[in-house]
Amino acid sequence: MKIFRMFRFILSLLLFCTSFGLMSQSLNLMPLPADIELGRGQFKIEQNFEIGFVSATDRLFGYATRFLRRLDGKTGEFFTQNQLGNNDDNENASLFIRIQREGLIELYEDESYELDITSEAVNLVAVTDIGAMRGLETLLQLVESDVNGYYFPVVKIRDEPRFPWRGLLIDFGRHWIPLDVVKRNIDGMALVKMNVLHMHLTEDQGFRIESLRYPKLHELGSNGKYFTQEEIRHLIGYAGDRGIRIVPEFDLPGHTTSWFVGYPGLASAPGPYQIETDFGVQDPTMDPTKESTYRFLENFFDEMTSLFPDEYVHIGGDENNGNQWDSNVEIQKFMRDNGFIDNHELQRDFNSRLLEILEDRGKKMMGWDEIFQPGISTDIMIQSWRGRSAMIESAQMGHKTILSNGYYIDLMQPASFHYQNDPIPADTPLSSREQSNILGGEAAMWTEIVSEETIDSRIWPRTAAIAERLWSPPDVTDVDDMYNRLKVISVALEDVGLMHEKNVNMMLRRLVGSDDITVLKTLVDVIEPLEGYARHGKIDFQTYTPLTRLADAAKPEASVAREFQLLVDSFASGNSDVIQDIKDHLLKWVENHRQFKEVVENAPIIKESEKLSLDLSNISKVGLQALSKTVKHSEDWKQKANRVLDSAKTPHMECELKVVDSIRKLVEFSK
Amino acid sequence: MKIFRMFRFILSLLLFCTSFGLMSQSLNLMPLPADIELGRGQFKIEQNFEIGFVSATDRLFGYATRFLRRLDGKTGEFFTQNQLGNNDDNENASLFIRIQREGLIELYEDESYELDITSEAVNLVAVTDIGAMRGLETLLQLVESDVNGYYFPVVKIRDEPRFPWRGLLIDFGRHWIPLDVVKRNIDGMALVKMNVLHMHLTEDQGFRIESLRYPKLHELGSNGKYFTQEEIRHLIGYAGDRGIRIVPEFDLPGHTTSWFVGYPGLASAPGPYQIETDFGVQDPTMDPTKESTYRFLENFFDEMTSLFPDEYVHIGGDENNGNQWDSNVEIQKFMRDNGFIDNHELQRDFNSRLLEILEDRGKKMMGWDEIFQPGISTDIMIQSWRGRSAMIESAQMGHKTILSNGYYIDLMQPASFHYQNDPIPADTPLSSREQSNILGGEAAMWTEIVSEETIDSRIWPRTAAIAERLWSPPDVTDVDDMYNRLKVISVALEDVGLMHEKNVNMMLRRLVGSDDITVLKTLVDVIEPLEGYARHGKIDFQTYTPLTRLADAAKPEASVAREFQLLVDSFASGNSDVIQDIKDHLLKWVENHRQFKEVVENAPIIKESEKLSLDLSNISKVGLQALSKTVKHSEDWKQKANRVLDSAKTPHMECELKVVDSIRKLVEFSK
Repeated sequence: MKIFRMFRFILSLLLFCTSFGLMSQSLNLMPLPADIELGRGQFKIEQNFEIGFVSATDRLFGYATRFLRRLDGKTGEFFTQNQLGNNDDNENASLFIRIQREGLIELYEDESYELDITSEAVNLVAVTDIGAMRGLETLLQLVESDVNGYYFPVVKIRDEPRFPWRGLLIDFGRHWIPLDVVKRNIDGMALVKMNVLHMHLTEDQGFRIESLRYPKLHELGSNGKYFTQEEIRHLIGYAGDRGIRIVPEFDLPGHTTSWFVGYPGLASAPGPYQIETDFGVQDPTMDPTKESTYRFLENFFDEMTSLFPDEYVHIGGDENNGNQWDSNVEIQKFMRDNGFIDNHELQRDFNSRLLEILEDRGKKMMGWDEIFQPGISTDIMIQSWRGRSAMIESAQMGHKTILSNGYYIDLMQPASFHYQNDPIPADTPLSSREQSNILGGEAAMWTEIVSEETIDSRIWPRTAAIAERLWSPPDVTDVDDMYNRLKVISVALEDVGLMHEKNVNMMLRRLVGSDDITVLKTLVDVIEPLEGYARHGKIDFQTYTPLTRLADAAKPEASVAREFQLLVDSFASGNSDVIQDIKDHLLKWVENHRQFKEVVENAPIIKESEKLSLDLSNISKVGLQALSKTVKHSEDWKQKANRVLDSAKTPHMECELKVVDSIRKLVEFSK
Repeated sequence: MKIFRMFRFILSLLLFCTSFGLMSQSLNLMPLPADIELGRGQFKIEQNFEIGFVSATDRLFGYATRFLRRLDGKTGEFFTQNQLGNNDDNENASLFIRIQREGLIELYEDESYELDITSEAVNLVAVTDIGAMRGLETLLQLVESDVNGYYFPVVKIRDEPRFPWRGLLIDFGRHWIPLDVVKRNIDGMALVKMNVLHMHLTEDQGFRIESLRYPKLHELGSNGKYFTQEEIRHLIGYAGDRGIRIVPEFDLPGHTTSWFVGYPGLASAPGPYQIETDFGVQDPTMDPTKESTYRFLENFFDEMTSLFPDEYVHIGGDENNGNQWDSNVEIQKFMRDNGFIDNHELQRDFNSRLLEILEDRGKKMMGWDEIFQPGISTDIMIQSWRGRSAMIESAQMGHKTILSNGYYIDLMQPASFHYQNDPIPADTPLSSREQSNILGGEAAMWTEIVSEETIDSRIWPRTAAIAERLWSPPDVTDVDDMYNRLKVISVALEDVGLMHEKNVNMMLRRLVGSDDITVLKTLVDVIEPLEGYARHGKIDFQTYTPLTRLADAAKPEASVAREFQLLVDSFASGNSDVIQDIKDHLLKWVENHRQFKEVVENAPIIKESEKLSLDLSNISKVGLQALSKTVKHSEDWKQKANRVLDSAKTPHMECELKVVDSIRKLVEFSK
């Protein structure tokens, strides 16, 4: 019942939206296309739905076949086409796909498309097959239904991306993320039109790629958890079939402990080395003063640059604390001999050598913003992570630049935060020429406290909001509308196998050791893991620390907390229709704690969370008092209420309650 | 609330159980060990838990490391050991593992183990590392908790399997099942101590393995969906690391359409051939009269017998309808020339040639019970599927034999059915010498209407009951006790990544296009897909028919229906405490239909299920009337009630309601 009341509430909210907002809501597209012209009428999706190609590529046949299976999976229609191929040029098709040429899996490739849906037919036209893939994703998101069945609305869409580099970084070093997880995330990226998978392949905690030239790298540096070269080739093909580039990162000269387990001679201090299990900035750093280091890197990059076809290679360059350099007499002598006044200059020299090595092999180099120093070649691309200023400066200096600051999805910030982080906002200090150096951005999925079980819920659905920021026009900025569409896209993302939703409940079942998770779920729906690096401050995480506890199961964004906040905001703006809904939530939370105590008895692992449940119960009672007509809302009562709320606002262990501010609002509005 | 009442009810049921039943319930082991001696006290699982090895193998180090991660994942304890290895011979360990030697991944290998848990230490002793793996699974299942934390109970267990062949067949031909799905199912098998993965690799609908010798087999016969030989080697290693054999099946001479797409000359009728998309018995059959066929098979088996290390190769041999042989003049002449009076004799001749080919390559041959004919070599092992009589006869004739009849998990029968299907029941007609020919059995997961999304829910948890039948002593037969333990094991099976539970909710979200599935879930929890081959009769399934509809989402066994049945049984036996629980269910089902109508409006794909929901509502009203003290339970009322029940008992489309009989019982017991 409550669900339907909520639904009606959302509907009534929508009535206040602009016509564009209303349209995009009804269309549920993400990212929103550049140009939509909504008509009247429907193209009905029925059993006779067929795809015909005017021209195509093998990978487009494959993509369209998967499209067909997702469409019949969604609608239940028994289409007659199986595997699409050269025979499918049928004139009687309902969906015609026409492209001019095969796209290149390269930066700046054309991804535009036009979609023209009438009640009779669907026409998808694009320059490249990649553009057609982007259009097919839009088309799938256009599926609507009414009592008569499923249909596409009559609409004309012209679309192209705002930025050419729309990436997702996955850190395979700190926690191992297996092949099938990567593949479903590539499908998720394609669904929201992202086009670069940045593979952070080497770290202190693991060397995650097979090297035939230097096999001790992966044999001794990975605990057996690495991609074979065949798997990498498979991934590159898989991503390419979806119009997605793969850019590898080999982080140098710091973050290199795992290299030194097999090859201690590369380090700036004597070994032996062990694979690091702790996190944070570590001392081990490559020795940039030995010619043998460069011979090793030349051979290594010979191998890796022929394995990875992309033009770009990322060399990291971040977080070198310089300790090993400072305490190495020979390195100090080298610096004096060469007139390097500090470690930055030494690292700049190292980077110049790397640039030469990569350019000799036909590659472009990129690195984190630490490598942006006076005097470095503008041929180097900069990825900004420490702040926006590095992005601005480097673009001004003529470097190609992408933004990751503000897109660190391991920090558990809300989608709205990332969404509002525009690389080129209206007030950018950059000239239009400088702006052209900003290629886009990358969501960064660092994995210190992320496992293969939790990674999907840390990436999705929030990354879809980042994808929209990087694809859609800059004036697409309505946060509420984004959240409404994000809810729908989150369900669609499950279609390609993503587990952001289903792994949460699985983890709750493991926590309580039973398939009945009702009580724990009620709590989890209103808590979030701590933002930023706060969890690291509470716990000494190692690579093998269990990531199965409540803070790991909790989603980065507590959806019920957000729904409750919308209700309270509506109430605060004078809508008294929502009072019963608010009360229902509060009563449920009060009641939940009674049962929570019983659940905890059989699940010691969640014992610590009893305080969260108690706090939730206590503040819910406060909320009910605030809404009560019989309680006197004296100053004294308000002070007491605020003390309860203050106490509940304090993060407990690694989680925080996300309904405290909403209930405080109820207290403020109590008369 | 209801949950806790249910819980109390189950507890009270348990009070009636035998002490053995009670013990096994509290231990939640599956399969139940051969011998358990439960003591008093606990071994507490705390942060200082460590594993030490007296002797071990590399794969046992790996297994124990995964054990440690599952144990800390379950308990949340921050153990200090990371990757286990030769250094872990520490005397201060809490768990000591001692083995005599590395086990062979072969039939009849020793899998026994002894587990001795005191309040001070855990000792696991086994002849082979495979036995130790089996013991580690038992140990993980022994984890219990109380308010003070997690512990192992003090217990002594001696355990060994009843049958040496405890298999799971997966049909990769009819629907493609990818590598990662296989791997998590291998982990599930290990969890319940199964030891043979039977890979049905070739079918009319697909040739699923790379052949380097005859590449057109997989290139033209699979639509690109096949295992590379590297993947097969990886799987064999993965299974072997868990003490599991892989037995490949190449189904011959029928079920071979996909071979003929690339090599039509092998067939008994001229081509060209296309990959079959329909199911059932097809005509295309290999030509057993041409020497070129045998030269092909010799080369093919040269390749495959060196790829697969197992002693056994399965050659299928089932469902040859003989049509192609009957209409081929040359084959008819060959038969006359050789004095074969029917196709059976021709196929027997073919099988003899296959046996020779395989024996020349050091392999043993097995096949489906069709190949069991008078005069075949007793060196051939028989897998019985059509009935139990073939198993009995073949064992009597001296063939090694395994049972699959009664273990066809694609037929959607309840776990209890499979559980009661003992290969050697007390009343077996077999002598003890003949009994030794019965090696065990195999659950068979045929995939006509099973996709990679639904396969886990079709295999698990029911297959755990089959695993127990094949491992545990023959007197372990308590069905209720089995179900109680199955519920717990089902949650544990999720730990290794199985999706039998989580994919159900995902599919419901796709059906309703929203993350709110409450209403649909209430219905799905009491329906099941039709048993046997009934769904095939309703729908003309093709390989590409969407398997995303309600019947695909519904589990083979509706757990809420079973809980309801237990309540009604208890009520019928005089327990009036359960009346309110029964009424709560009935009221919920009546109410659910009101909301169901609204849900269906936005989800045309489930429109057909509205009748099921209406029926559920109608019979629930009948149930409420039966319990009502104000309704007069006249003969007339009873007749009307039974008409409503009869109507709801009729399967609707591809599903059936599973609470009809329970509600009928309420009507019968109404006074």
